[in-house]
Amino acid sequence: MAKKRSSPAALRHVTSINDLSKDEVERLFREADGILETSADPHAPHRVARTGDGAKGFILGALFYEPSTRTRLSFETAMLRLGGATISSADPATSSAAKGESLADTVRVASNYADILVLRHPRDGAARLAAEYASVPVINGGDGAHEHPTQTLCDLYTLRRQQPRKFKDLNVAVSGDLKGSRTIHSFVYALARFGANIVLMPAKGMGLPDHVFERLRDEFNCEIASGRAAGGNVSAVDALYVTPNRPHQLSLIANTEIEVRDEADRIDVVYVTRFQKERWKEAKQEYPKIDRAFLKDKRYANTRILHPLPRVGELDTSLDEDERAVYFEQAAYGVVVRMALISLMLGVGEQSELARHDGGFGASKWPVYDRPPGTGLSCANPNCIVHDELERKHCRDKFHLVEGPKLRCVYCETDTHEFVAADTRSHRFHSTGKDTWESLTKALPSLIFYPTLDAAAAAGYSPRRRAV
Amino acid sequence: MAKKRSSPAALRHVTSINDLSKDEVERLFREADGILETSADPHAPHRVARTGDGAKGFILGALFYEPSTRTRLSFETAMLRLGGATISSADPATSSAAKGESLADTVRVASNYADILVLRHPRDGAARLAAEYASVPVINGGDGAHEHPTQTLCDLYTLRRQQPRKFKDLNVAVSGDLKGSRTIHSFVYALARFGANIVLMPAKGMGLPDHVFERLRDEFNCEIASGRAAGGNVSAVDALYVTPNRPHQLSLIANTEIEVRDEADRIDVVYVTRFQKERWKEAKQEYPKIDRAFLKDKRYANTRILHPLPRVGELDTSLDEDERAVYFEQAAYGVVVRMALISLMLGVGEQSELARHDGGFGASKWPVYDRPPGTGLSCANPNCIVHDELERKHCRDKFHLVEGPKLRCVYCETDTHEFVAADTRSHRFHSTGKDTWESLTKALPSLIFYPTLDAAAAAGYSPRRRAV
Amino acid sequence: MAKKRSSPAALRHVTSINDLSKDEVERLFREADGILETSADPHAPHRVARTGDGAKGFILGALFYEPSTRTRLSFETAMLRLGGATISSADPATSSAAKGESLADTVRVASNYADILVLRHPRDGAARLAAEYASVPVINGGDGAHEHPTQTLCDLYTLRRQQPRKFKDLNVAVSGDLKGSRTIHSFVYALARFGANIVLMPAKGMGLPDHVFERLRDEFNCEIASGRAAGGNVSAVDALYVTPNRPHQLSLIANTEIEVRDEADRIDVVYVTRFQKERWKEAKQEYPKIDRAFLKDKRYANTRILHPLPRVGELDTSLDEDERAVYFEQAAYGVVVRMALISLMLGVGEQSELARHDGGFGASKWPVYDRPPGTGLSCANPNCIVHDELERKHCRDKFHLVEGPKLRCVYCETDTHEFVAADTRSHRFHSTGKDTWESLTKALPSLIFYPTLDAAAAAGYSPRRRAV
Repeated sequence: MAKKRSSPAALRHVTSINDLSKDEVERLFREADGILETSADPHAPHRVARTGDGAKGFILGALFYEPSTRTRLSFETAMLRLGGATISSADPATSSAAKGESLADTVRVASNYADILVLRHPRDGAARLAAEYASVPVINGGDGAHEHPTQTLCDLYTLRRQQPRKFKDLNVAVSGDLKGSRTIHSFVYALARFGANIVLMPAKGMGLPDHVFERLRDEFNCEIASGRAAGGNVSAVDALYVTPNRPHQLSLIANTEIEVRDEADRIDVVYVTRFQKERWKEAKQEYPKIDRAFLKDKRYANTRILHPLPRVGELDTSLDEDERAVYFEQAAYGVVVRMALISLMLGVGEQSELARHDGGFGASKWPVYDRPPGTGLSCANPNCIVHDELERKHCRDKFHLVEGPKLRCVYCETDTHEFVAADTRSHRFHSTGKDTWESLTKALPSLIFYPTLDAAAAAGYSPRRRAV
Repeated sequence: MAKKRSSPAALRHVTSINDLSKDEVERLFREADGILETSADPHAPHRVARTGDGAKGFILGALFYEPSTRTRLSFETAMLRLGGATISSADPATSSAAKGESLADTVRVASNYADILVLRHPRDGAARLAAEYASVPVINGGDGAHEHPTQTLCDLYTLRRQQPRKFKDLNVAVSGDLKGSRTIHSFVYALARFGANIVLMPAKGMGLPDHVFERLRDEFNCEIASGRAAGGNVSAVDALYVTPNRPHQLSLIANTEIEVRDEADRIDVVYVTRFQKERWKEAKQEYPKIDRAFLKDKRYANTRILHPLPRVGELDTSLDEDERAVYFEQAAYGVVVRMALISLMLGVGEQSELARHDGGFGASKWPVYDRPPGTGLSCANPNCIVHDELERKHCRDKFHLVEGPKLRCVYCETDTHEFVAADTRSHRFHSTGKDTWESLTKALPSLIFYPTLDAAAAAGYSPRRRAV
Repeated sequence: MAKKRSSPAALRHVTSINDLSKDEVERLFREADGILETSADPHAPHRVARTGDGAKGFILGALFYEPSTRTRLSFETAMLRLGGATISSADPATSSAAKGESLADTVRVASNYADILVLRHPRDGAARLAAEYASVPVINGGDGAHEHPTQTLCDLYTLRRQQPRKFKDLNVAVSGDLKGSRTIHSFVYALARFGANIVLMPAKGMGLPDHVFERLRDEFNCEIASGRAAGGNVSAVDALYVTPNRPHQLSLIANTEIEVRDEADRIDVVYVTRFQKERWKEAKQEYPKIDRAFLKDKRYANTRILHPLPRVGELDTSLDEDERAVYFEQAAYGVVVRMALISLMLGVGEQSELARHDGGFGASKWPVYDRPPGTGLSCANPNCIVHDELERKHCRDKFHLVEGPKLRCVYCETDTHEFVAADTRSHRFHSTGKDTWESLTKALPSLIFYPTLDAAAAAGYSPRRRAV
């Protein structure tokens, strides 16, 4: 007895920075510009000081399963400045989750309250799951180590306000913990997408993970170079050049000494990330600290210092009065950027609203593998939302089949390289390592993926062409 | 020096579903219908999508001494959708109670802030105590195991929207933990009041308590029948038939096998309750699970599945797409029902406002016994608000003298059957077991009740007519 | 590279009751009177029942690093009643501080969200630090044991509504814990400033601290008398008479038996303070309890009982219906007083707005000593915000050089009497104990203060005139 729901309007979620097209990001930034033009504080041009009524009658619901005063207050402020109202669940301990309710159920219920939802959750991919069950637009306010797209929008907008020329060929250094920081990963993909060059200044042992390098190279046309920086106090500097129309000529070599290109000597932006004390127990003294001494090198003469805040020591307070420091402006832009995003998602802005889609997301360029939980392969990331006991029954094993070929979890975007494809028609599995993306794509409707040959064999499949 | 307060306006509280007359409930539902007619989401007719301004300028104060994201957010949403504003204390740990302030004092102070208060509290009867001290209307948002009247209103309204014919003769099955669930007790009383028949499907050992049966029989004219269900997976099914104009013919026999009436074979509604993990440690497997298999029996062909949510396993997710499942609609109706209630309590709705009374409650049909704390008998329920150390000095020992005779706590409505009545004029106590409700009612002004003969004797009373 | 900030508008903070001039306080009270005149509940003239739109479009941000439902809700109510909106961080555990962010950074960020900030913090002097970093007005909602100025305003306003004649010559008794209560200290300074007499009824061992006596005497022209009360149940009663135009004739003698002046026999007001269970572990029975028996003495015939609430036993509930009890009215006035303050700070009231200043505070009559942290002397109060590890790098060692001479911490106002002044020009230190306020003031720009001679010597200074 299938349910005849009144067909919901097509809608639009934003759970990853990649959910927004370049054109949509530009439109969003124009919306933000327009808001600042009419509503900025005359004494602080980055601060929205006037309240409009574009979102009057709308309610924003903030569902925070993880503490984050800053993000929550900036979303609430954005909604209030648009003339809307807010309801908030700020504390995991007082939430329905404490009673054992699944995120999927909570989101379905909250969809009846709010007109737009913001989710912060400790699990990677939680925002995507929430979006699958919501009947109103969902914004990802940070999901585990996965994404924090409004922070990335805010970072990009700060760059654009600081460097009006354009993103293209901007040299942006990213410093600190490049390994586990979700803001950094979203940020570098976005930089690459907009054509900026990326200079890497990782803390020791905190370099960009291989999968990020790989994705920058394969999907964002980045060319990787490495070398010791001229004037930095950091052991190794690597740069990524965005080369949209060239084949990949350089291999991926990180942390190796080669000459830095001249061009890299001008650093337009240094993006500093937080020292995460929970991740970095012993070697605090080795975490790079950005201070006046660091910035004395002439390559930083006209740089801009960004930081997503909060900071805990990696950014010296002596810089606060330095005119290259723009991190407090950056924090302020968080309001106007979120106002612009909410406006375009609700369709109440000056710019035309974001495209709506059935299901809330635009079509992917990759085909989707979609099987009930426990059928075959599950996401390899143990922190992925699909592994949450409460959510398991609401998730399926869903992957994008990405060129490589590799399987990218639809929720947390973790890539799986090693897998075995079994064909439900032939009851045989494909020859691992020999399948091309094209062949898998063609057979996808009848395929089940397994993590290993043994797992596929245990499920009753035999090799494809056993001695034919 | 008695205080000459400016006489407060008569006002109106709702701390129990029974505080509302049938006519008031009907008026409230018409108000809700009216709101949905003008403000429902065109894609989800159970969801309020537009914000009015009926409650503009009013403030709703949510005082939550127990976590409940869902209830709090639905009240806040309701007030915002009416154009009002909200203030909330969501977390017991950051509340005044943590500093040792009594609920009575907090409510008096909060009455100066908000125009209407919603209280959630872990103690039975807390809402009634709060109402005694508030100078603005109080809504019970759940007090211990006592009542959760807006949930009950929401449940009834969902029935009415699903079964437009009428409540009378509707066969409503209630499943799961019928023992400790406050929503179930309020719900069955309300069903009986509106003439619906109640079919019981308790989890093993989780049947409806005797005092609820007794009250259904004595005060709500229910006739009790028992039997094994035709197609259910539950061990015993009992039904309660509402017989307004007939004397009670059947005795109260629960969990016994007799024939189920034919009529009961059509189950119009299955109301499923949450598996409360804190109450049900070992035998999880025995808790009834409502799923597609269960619903295959033809008596459920046109049933509607309700659940107050959150669910934790007793309701299979496979039903979510089944058109008999209406629990998410039910959750959505929580907003419009609360909008209607707030509107009628503030007098800002289309329907005429709820009657106001001195003291906030309509006159009871039972006389009230009211003595300072510690005089004689106290409420037998250890979780009653009168036993809270902080509140003791703000409560009196107050009981309704109910036909039986029995004493019903004015706060938590727990009944006491065994008690000794001592007469302050004659200094004798009445003959226990021989006092009629009428004789006690007549003597009430001079009576003090004691829990036992010994207690009465210790207080200096002697038997009434010792060998006259 | 000094930062060219767009020059911020002059603004105005209120972190201490002393930040407000007597004229400003009177203006604020007139504003409150005006609000009550037009918006009071007809049934409760101390309660604001109508919502205006003076602050429409403004956002109040409540940053609470310590739980306080009452204060937070009264501020939120005040802002909502003015037609504004609110954002709140109510729970320390979910705040940015949990991630290691400094208050200074949080306030700078929050200044981009809200138009006016309220801070509650466990550290003394935190509000002043916040004000130094905020670009919007800051209101102190209670900082450690330092100040709670809006409570004091509320107390004073309650007096004025109850005793319309005037503050001058009013006899105000303060009872209970006079030692550690911030509200009492702010309150007695304010009483003295407005010319009221103060009668002390401390709990045993909980008398007003010496530094408060000293300041009352030296800066608020108080004359101190002592004696045993005629009819109180408290062991000692001391009175402070405000003698604006007379030299100090009596020495500071507390807790000694002398005759109480006749005039003191009329107690216009008894201000009761909370029994703080965390401070007062064993001797609960000795804490003075104000009840009907206490008030039977004829000196209390026309008294008014005030209490900042919450109470936990020191104020008997039997008084609640006594017409001398005004503590619930006092709590209600909290809303209108905060409405008036917000209105005058934002400049949206009927009365003219509070004067704005560069830096947010009016000029002090005392010169300021200001050195980087660690240079010389630091505040002697271990709970001062300057000693918070996270804030240290944002604070300097700042003191007002007050007549005495003594050093008063700019943040927490703790006085330091013993210190050594070292002169950076002569490399000698002044003769301790012989320096006058005038000589130190003159030399201040070149002085560094040290806690001891040894500390000054260790820093390379030698005695001023060693055997010249």
